[in-house]
Amino acid sequence: MKAFFKAKSIAVIGASRNPNKVGHVILKNLLESDYQGKVYPVNPNASYLLNVKCYHAVAALPHKVELAVIAVPAEQSLQAVEDCGKHHIKNIVMVTAGFAEVGNHELEQRLLKIVQKYKINLIGPNVLGVYDAHSSLDTLFLPRLRLNRPKPGSISFVCQSGAVGSATLDLIAKQGYGCAKFISYGNALTINETDCIEYLGQDPETKVICLYIEGIKQGKRFMEVCKKVSKKKPIVAVKGGMTQAGSQAALSHTASLAGSGEIYKAAFKQSGILWAESLEDWFDYARVLEKSIKPKGEKVMIITNGGGYGILAADAVEKNKLKMASFQPRTRTALQKKFPRLVNIHNPLDLVGDADTQRYADALEACLEDKNIDMILLIVLYQTPLITSDIVDVIKEAYDQKKKPLFIVSTGGDFTELHKRSLEEHGIPCFTFPERAVQAMKVVVDFYNKEQ
Amino acid sequence: MKAFFKAKSIAVIGASRNPNKVGHVILKNLLESDYQGKVYPVNPNASYLLNVKCYHAVAALPHKVELAVIAVPAEQSLQAVEDCGKHHIKNIVMVTAGFAEVGNHELEQRLLKIVQKYKINLIGPNVLGVYDAHSSLDTLFLPRLRLNRPKPGSISFVCQSGAVGSATLDLIAKQGYGCAKFISYGNALTINETDCIEYLGQDPETKVICLYIEGIKQGKRFMEVCKKVSKKKPIVAVKGGMTQAGSQAALSHTASLAGSGEIYKAAFKQSGILWAESLEDWFDYARVLEKSIKPKGEKVMIITNGGGYGILAADAVEKNKLKMASFQPRTRTALQKKFPRLVNIHNPLDLVGDADTQRYADALEACLEDKNIDMILLIVLYQTPLITSDIVDVIKEAYDQKKKPLFIVSTGGDFTELHKRSLEEHGIPCFTFPERAVQAMKVVVDFYNKEQ
Repeated sequence: MKAFFKAKSIAVIGASRNPNKVGHVILKNLLESDYQGKVYPVNPNASYLLNVKCYHAVAALPHKVELAVIAVPAEQSLQAVEDCGKHHIKNIVMVTAGFAEVGNHELEQRLLKIVQKYKINLIGPNVLGVYDAHSSLDTLFLPRLRLNRPKPGSISFVCQSGAVGSATLDLIAKQGYGCAKFISYGNALTINETDCIEYLGQDPETKVICLYIEGIKQGKRFMEVCKKVSKKKPIVAVKGGMTQAGSQAALSHTASLAGSGEIYKAAFKQSGILWAESLEDWFDYARVLEKSIKPKGEKVMIITNGGGYGILAADAVEKNKLKMASFQPRTRTALQKKFPRLVNIHNPLDLVGDADTQRYADALEACLEDKNIDMILLIVLYQTPLITSDIVDVIKEAYDQKKKPLFIVSTGGDFTELHKRSLEEHGIPCFTFPERAVQAMKVVVDFYNKEQ
Repeated sequence: MKAFFKAKSIAVIGASRNPNKVGHVILKNLLESDYQGKVYPVNPNASYLLNVKCYHAVAALPHKVELAVIAVPAEQSLQAVEDCGKHHIKNIVMVTAGFAEVGNHELEQRLLKIVQKYKINLIGPNVLGVYDAHSSLDTLFLPRLRLNRPKPGSISFVCQSGAVGSATLDLIAKQGYGCAKFISYGNALTINETDCIEYLGQDPETKVICLYIEGIKQGKRFMEVCKKVSKKKPIVAVKGGMTQAGSQAALSHTASLAGSGEIYKAAFKQSGILWAESLEDWFDYARVLEKSIKPKGEKVMIITNGGGYGILAADAVEKNKLKMASFQPRTRTALQKKFPRLVNIHNPLDLVGDADTQRYADALEACLEDKNIDMILLIVLYQTPLITSDIVDVIKEAYDQKKKPLFIVSTGGDFTELHKRSLEEHGIPCFTFPERAVQAMKVVVDFYNKEQ
């Protein structure tokens, strides 16, 4: 599947000068991106499109075109695939819709025969296509103005729903998460979800695989592949159609037999797949798993400058079945010497409202050394005046030691966001609410526990 | 308690020219705000502070000062309260810390005697104080640069924890929610959580009361007052110390006996209090309850242009024990005539990827008329090119009819956020994720169901 992400040349079949046509948007996106390969528009009625030389037919293309994107109407698309086959183009993203998803199974069967005849690798039909944040190869037919493209990173997405996929990319771009590869696989005529997971499992750019599915085609192979891949990389899945209402909706959406939610849940667990209850959880888990360091155990130390936040975090630790860490006696003694009497050396470690940056630095250092502590939840409320902005450097330095997973919680407005952004750009997971941070910690523990 | 929010004159006792002192920050905040009343700094060693005439003692103040903020150290603070009592100042916000919360119960008892002697209404000691977004009366000793103040609105907050309170204000300011009143009541020497709820219950500016507590002082009175108030206005509560880990932390924070989580949950339910499982839920519920229209029942219609989102929303409807609405036959017939064949007239109503603004307008109009539909969840994914920006006007027009609760879900980046902001500024609740929107719908139903 590598060609779908790293092809050095792409033909856009159905490229158009009409800005409302999908073939126009795809060509424009490719030309305006940082994609370094060659782009060949194909259109029988144009010599140039967007200032690029246009080819009147597939047969006229230079040899060795590595990938074709087909964006012609359904009735012309079979001929286009046939042309690609004859011209030795082996990899096709087929954006064209109007096949099984609208009940046109006969057309889809004819397409399958052509694909098999020429041994073509086909993603689609009826797809949003692929996006590679590293190579900028981008077949999404949605304009960049409406759909921000995420920066390069290590999270890859496999999405059965195009809408979930496009909204996802747009959101993570806005939130600054890094993306490796994105695949919307549509009708899955040849390449399906399992093929995508298998490929991403051995893709060096991918650290985390995010999966949105409504139904699975080859259950047994899916589980085998996921079991293997999830030993090396986390797979986080959201399943649409978990309830009766949802699975009825899924039936009319992708004709997926969604099946019982509980059966899926059990099968996912057996396959090593991490379960996300909602899209929001999915994003949270993906970004912490991308960054996170393996914890030695499940004992959490909470450091805070707001008592209430410490309490809510402690509640979340217990609710998520993690453990509250206790200080080693020597850490306790050392901190008692350093801190004013008002600071109780307990967990949560409440540094109280007049905590300054140095108090945080001392607490962090002690907790990184203490062998009774596996993970640190650091709550910093920037509203209090003695916290100076260089706390950001203190946190970065602690994080860069990579000794223990370190999650940050800060709630607030502009001043808070400024500091959070600086930390996130450094790769440190920051959360607005303690409950969500702890839930994400639990998933990190689950992933590494399973691994053992 | 009205004086704490609408006082026409405020003395700041302990006003200071040292920018690191609490008394300086409070004075500065008041002078830099839109507060229209008179501000009298009191400091024995200054004639002017921040260009305002300063009084050397409480006794020197003009008569009829309606409110005093005391920000002197603990050892001087009892004298300050005594001075206020003698000078007929009946309302005091006592920011000063160093009483029961640090084990100094004897000092707190002496304070109580003075307060009782002069029949003073006192909020505190050890408080962040009060904020009124309508009058701009603001005793928070945290600088505006670090803590954005929210705009005027109808959500009021009662917070046992100062840190939860300040982070809350800062966050809702950033997110554009409207605030009525905010009270951090600290050690609750005289005025406690129940007094605050009772007052806000009859405050015309307050539509929703948000409560963060760790423990309750007078359980019986609390429940009686809440039962009464919650008949008129929603009270949404987050309880810190729900678990054993959390309640241990609460004990060392506000010396609150947090008690069993399940007992609190049951007591809250009996008192008509809506339960928020996390801070994030708290905010979501507050803003929808502030805006929301009473639903006739619990039947939800989902309108979407992304099939996967419709499925996830349907899952959420069932998980939250709401009901999926079915179209009346005549609505179905009318929509079948209007829409292309690809659009199935089901719930979720998937307008499909090529939906334009008109298709949304038609769907919305039909759903507002249909008597089988109680609430509408409108999912708009702005990534698809045929949605024009005037969809925002279509939604506003539908919302302004106030026929049915209408919640919007949109996930995305800059383009999406632009449109969401416009809707939110119009008072329409927008969500990033379908699961959260449906959960908030459930709380709206719960509030009005209870009321009947």
